[in-house]
Amino acid sequence: MSNVDQQLEDTRETIVSEVPNDITITDVTYEGPELVIYTRDPKSFAENGDLVRRLASKLRKRITVRPDTDVLAPPREAREEVLSVIPEEATVTDLDFHEDTGEVVIEAEKPGMVIGRHGSTLREITQQVGWTPEVVRTPPIESSTVSNVRNFLKQEREDRRDILERVGRQIHREEMSDDEWVRITTLGCCREVGRAAFILSTPETRVLIDAGDKPGAEDEYPYLQVPEALGVGASSLDAVVLTHAHLDHSALIPLLFKYGYDGPIYTTEPTRDLMGLLTLDYLDVAAKEGRSPPYDSEMVREAIKHTIPIEYGDVTDISPDIKLTLHNAGHILGSAVSHFHIGDGLYNVAFSGDIHYDDTRLFNGAVNEFPRVETLVLESTYGGRNDYQTDQEDSEQRLKEIIRDTYEQGGSVLIPAFAVGRSQELMLVLEEAMREGDIPEMPVHLDGMMWEATAIHTTYPEYLRDDLRDRIFHDDENPFLADQFNHIDGGEEERQEVTDGEPAIVLSTSGMVTGGPIMSWLEHFGPDPDSTLTFVGYQAQGTLGRRIQNGWDEIPIGNNGRGRGNTLSLEMNVETVDGFSGHADRQGLENFVKTMNPRPEKVLCVHGDESSVQDLSSALYHEYNMRTFAPKNLETFRFV
Amino acid sequence: MSNVDQQLEDTRETIVSEVPNDITITDVTYEGPELVIYTRDPKSFAENGDLVRRLASKLRKRITVRPDTDVLAPPREAREEVLSVIPEEATVTDLDFHEDTGEVVIEAEKPGMVIGRHGSTLREITQQVGWTPEVVRTPPIESSTVSNVRNFLKQEREDRRDILERVGRQIHREEMSDDEWVRITTLGCCREVGRAAFILSTPETRVLIDAGDKPGAEDEYPYLQVPEALGVGASSLDAVVLTHAHLDHSALIPLLFKYGYDGPIYTTEPTRDLMGLLTLDYLDVAAKEGRSPPYDSEMVREAIKHTIPIEYGDVTDISPDIKLTLHNAGHILGSAVSHFHIGDGLYNVAFSGDIHYDDTRLFNGAVNEFPRVETLVLESTYGGRNDYQTDQEDSEQRLKEIIRDTYEQGGSVLIPAFAVGRSQELMLVLEEAMREGDIPEMPVHLDGMMWEATAIHTTYPEYLRDDLRDRIFHDDENPFLADQFNHIDGGEEERQEVTDGEPAIVLSTSGMVTGGPIMSWLEHFGPDPDSTLTFVGYQAQGTLGRRIQNGWDEIPIGNNGRGRGNTLSLEMNVETVDGFSGHADRQGLENFVKTMNPRPEKVLCVHGDESSVQDLSSALYHEYNMRTFAPKNLETFRFV
Repeated sequence: MSNVDQQLEDTRETIVSEVPNDITITDVTYEGPELVIYTRDPKSFAENGDLVRRLASKLRKRITVRPDTDVLAPPREAREEVLSVIPEEATVTDLDFHEDTGEVVIEAEKPGMVIGRHGSTLREITQQVGWTPEVVRTPPIESSTVSNVRNFLKQEREDRRDILERVGRQIHREEMSDDEWVRITTLGCCREVGRAAFILSTPETRVLIDAGDKPGAEDEYPYLQVPEALGVGASSLDAVVLTHAHLDHSALIPLLFKYGYDGPIYTTEPTRDLMGLLTLDYLDVAAKEGRSPPYDSEMVREAIKHTIPIEYGDVTDISPDIKLTLHNAGHILGSAVSHFHIGDGLYNVAFSGDIHYDDTRLFNGAVNEFPRVETLVLESTYGGRNDYQTDQEDSEQRLKEIIRDTYEQGGSVLIPAFAVGRSQELMLVLEEAMREGDIPEMPVHLDGMMWEATAIHTTYPEYLRDDLRDRIFHDDENPFLADQFNHIDGGEEERQEVTDGEPAIVLSTSGMVTGGPIMSWLEHFGPDPDSTLTFVGYQAQGTLGRRIQNGWDEIPIGNNGRGRGNTLSLEMNVETVDGFSGHADRQGLENFVKTMNPRPEKVLCVHGDESSVQDLSSALYHEYNMRTFAPKNLETFRFV
Repeated sequence: MSNVDQQLEDTRETIVSEVPNDITITDVTYEGPELVIYTRDPKSFAENGDLVRRLASKLRKRITVRPDTDVLAPPREAREEVLSVIPEEATVTDLDFHEDTGEVVIEAEKPGMVIGRHGSTLREITQQVGWTPEVVRTPPIESSTVSNVRNFLKQEREDRRDILERVGRQIHREEMSDDEWVRITTLGCCREVGRAAFILSTPETRVLIDAGDKPGAEDEYPYLQVPEALGVGASSLDAVVLTHAHLDHSALIPLLFKYGYDGPIYTTEPTRDLMGLLTLDYLDVAAKEGRSPPYDSEMVREAIKHTIPIEYGDVTDISPDIKLTLHNAGHILGSAVSHFHIGDGLYNVAFSGDIHYDDTRLFNGAVNEFPRVETLVLESTYGGRNDYQTDQEDSEQRLKEIIRDTYEQGGSVLIPAFAVGRSQELMLVLEEAMREGDIPEMPVHLDGMMWEATAIHTTYPEYLRDDLRDRIFHDDENPFLADQFNHIDGGEEERQEVTDGEPAIVLSTSGMVTGGPIMSWLEHFGPDPDSTLTFVGYQAQGTLGRRIQNGWDEIPIGNNGRGRGNTLSLEMNVETVDGFSGHADRQGLENFVKTMNPRPEKVLCVHGDESSVQDLSSALYHEYNMRTFAPKNLETFRFV
């Protein structure tokens, strides 16, 4: 009997001795990080409200209880009973019975009403039909990404069960080494922005954290090929953890599967969906620019299939000696500070990923409280000595001023913006400004992936800022559904209509004017001296956005599909409003560390230009007397 | 045509265009780091004294010229002609013709006379018989190690040619990477003494420097199994460099071949032979102590077969982007400071290995002048703030005093000593002291591997200190051949005779009284209050030597083959004389760095207890304002 089987047998005996005699346990298995208990008596389990919690605490495992298949009501009968238990206002949009696991997936517009107070409705469902209900939200705005991901996972259910079982056995394998050490190897984003990638390793376990591309340097990948990364074979990794979906952290995640990786990706559910959206777009853009992308869309599907979503705050075993907990990072939807607890109290490392320390309209500020943490790997995008940004309130005032002025002279405001994060923040600013009469009511057109990204935001309101979530949950005041917002889905024709119509605001990708529909909008509005082009985000060196900021007014409208291979004279006004960044500025980074609880002993400053990481590293050392480092790529630090 | 073949073809054309028309080139191949030119006209080549040097400088390669086989005189004829050219006083002891390479190996007691002034005799041999002479020294003291190694290599000649050709093609392969970086990974001997091992890596090349055991902790190997070492497969290493033969640097070199390594080991010739001697003894000791050694003697033979010996000062290509030069380290016979020149002027790293900075009787002090060096990896055995040793002259006075006093009271002096290094230093001290009448003439008995180690020293006098070498070369005053020295080869019976005889000096292994013949000597002399046990080397924590130093006088004479499983009451005097270490002391280490030319930018302090490396690192930082580090094992530093 293998070690894992022996362990399961022992666990089963413990469970049998713990549950009341009238509950029959038929099987105990691992499914990813969870222990799954099959029983003939799901109703008794459900009635015994405290039982699962007691078992979880005794076994120190996350536990799921499933009915044995022969106690299930047939789906046809069950469907009616389930619907009769759920209040009609919950608005169930889909019911899906999985006979292999005894689960019924309930998609509803108001998941809270399906769950009921403290899970009472869920328990009632189990008691009535035996099936284990799993609830997902019907996206308030239809998202093709979310529905594609859900349909794909439904279709790949069997494969996925195999993956989860394999991963489960891997996680719960016996520890083999007597040795004790903890190491971090830097594979990218050190003394530079982009291509984030780290290896966290112990004698037992190797984890890859992020695998991104480098914007503006398409051929500079993280050093995945070195021995300590994938050089020993992609299958030597135990786990991949993705901090958030931006391409400089996620673009090469699918590539791992081309290299033979076949293990889990731990991240939040919205990050999974956004990663799907953004990496598919990454392939699209590469193809359009005539580059051959390093993988194809099949690998994106593999990545999604191998994702094990975890929620903020859930402590999850990812290997025999590492527990992972994700915490809100405040940067974009689903972004996570990733905390690793290693060994039995041996060591703790937190990777900040990208963070925003203060609350924004969209998100609560990044979490910086942990049970323990000795080393922090900290992003330093704005770590430079002068990287203090304008207060967002002042920035909002300035933006509104620009909008008012432009409106008064009969022009429109064109804002290049990233699809994920900043666009939604701006939508909230504009919605409120119009609602409160700060700026005139006018249409706000969203072009590019922005609408789709917004739809994903509304699917996961749990990941948004408290009061925003409450508005969406309780008050039916979902600001993203405001009437002003219009999805540009009619292509060039609709753009021409907008141009010919009344003053409006247009948000369009790409955020740095490197391609996408913004190019077309520039052609439409560029010659209009009454309209204003307004930059609200960082424009990298070498991008057209940066050049326009610097005063270029002869724009090559090149051969990018729509272009006429010609030059455009830019007559519109050009303005820049900073302060809308998704990153903590220098003060925010310092505050994150200063108020961190507990304060870490060591900080590795990464993900910033050379001067930014040096400045921040030196400041943290002098102000808080901690050991700080500004690593280079390809270094390995040992902590125990 | 492969890239290497193309390169050889181009090289051949260059050579043909450079040599006079009357010289026919029949083949050009790589043999390890050397370029071998086959010609029908070896005599013309030999006459044209400058030609080889000119070609070497033009092609930037080490060059060997060999005669095409069909211009060779048959061995039987050639033998007589060769012997007629060499002066009789050279005393040729063996002649060995290798038809595959056209080489004749000449073993002689006076190799210098075979070579002749500026190589004139060698050239004459080639002119007479076509064969290329290679000269080796007849060991002045018969060494079974040296003769075993030579016979083995003779027998494995064909295999060895295959290895050399393969290695040659590897070294001269095309560079594949556009990337530039230089890294050092620490696998052992960091914040500890023992288990030396480092990886030096570039995008192109991975080199292992040393692979030793840890004295007193037999199961603590260097971290060879991690991905960045052998985790990606032993065959991923381009080269192994061995700084010297002591087991804490060499013990696991043969293990590499068990793991599948099949590439070259670069080291000096005496280190190769001493490694053979010491690793075979390592296997022996393990077997006697009932431990199962990690490899068998077959692997030692593999290591010897794969060794490419290089001489101090020779710049050797070991991969497309790394050139290695070994320099005298002053520590033991053949010990080398290993200098790596990386890329075309990109970076330079020197590994000190173990060093002695000042001249000793045996060796010149360690070399610390290099064309360039940015990073030094420095041993720190005596790097602690109080690690200043007694001056060797004072130590010698003290030792002679002890010998005189003991002699006067009719006793003998028993000195536990390491076979390699310290024993030979002591022999020189004793020989001189007796010659100059400082101590009475008396027999000096050498027990254990000491005699064999001494024989190896006399085989390679080029590696000894200038004036000692001169004495051996020119004056027939080889001090190791002095009459007083007696090799104990008659076992227990001879030891009994020595004990019963006149006062004498006995040097015996092991140096820390952890086994070996010293145990028997203790039984013989232990009860004699007129005799003196004198420690001259470091006694590690936990060894019997250390305990006796600390005052133990009841010695367990255990079951180690000869013992009676009993207790021995130690009645003899116990003295300690320090100052005979093979390591630089704190002052020596500082002087090595202070006078180093050029001064390196960075120093990694390794191979010392935690406090020693910290002390030295901190002192070098403050005194010389260089960046210094006290690495842990399993870290990776990047330099470019």
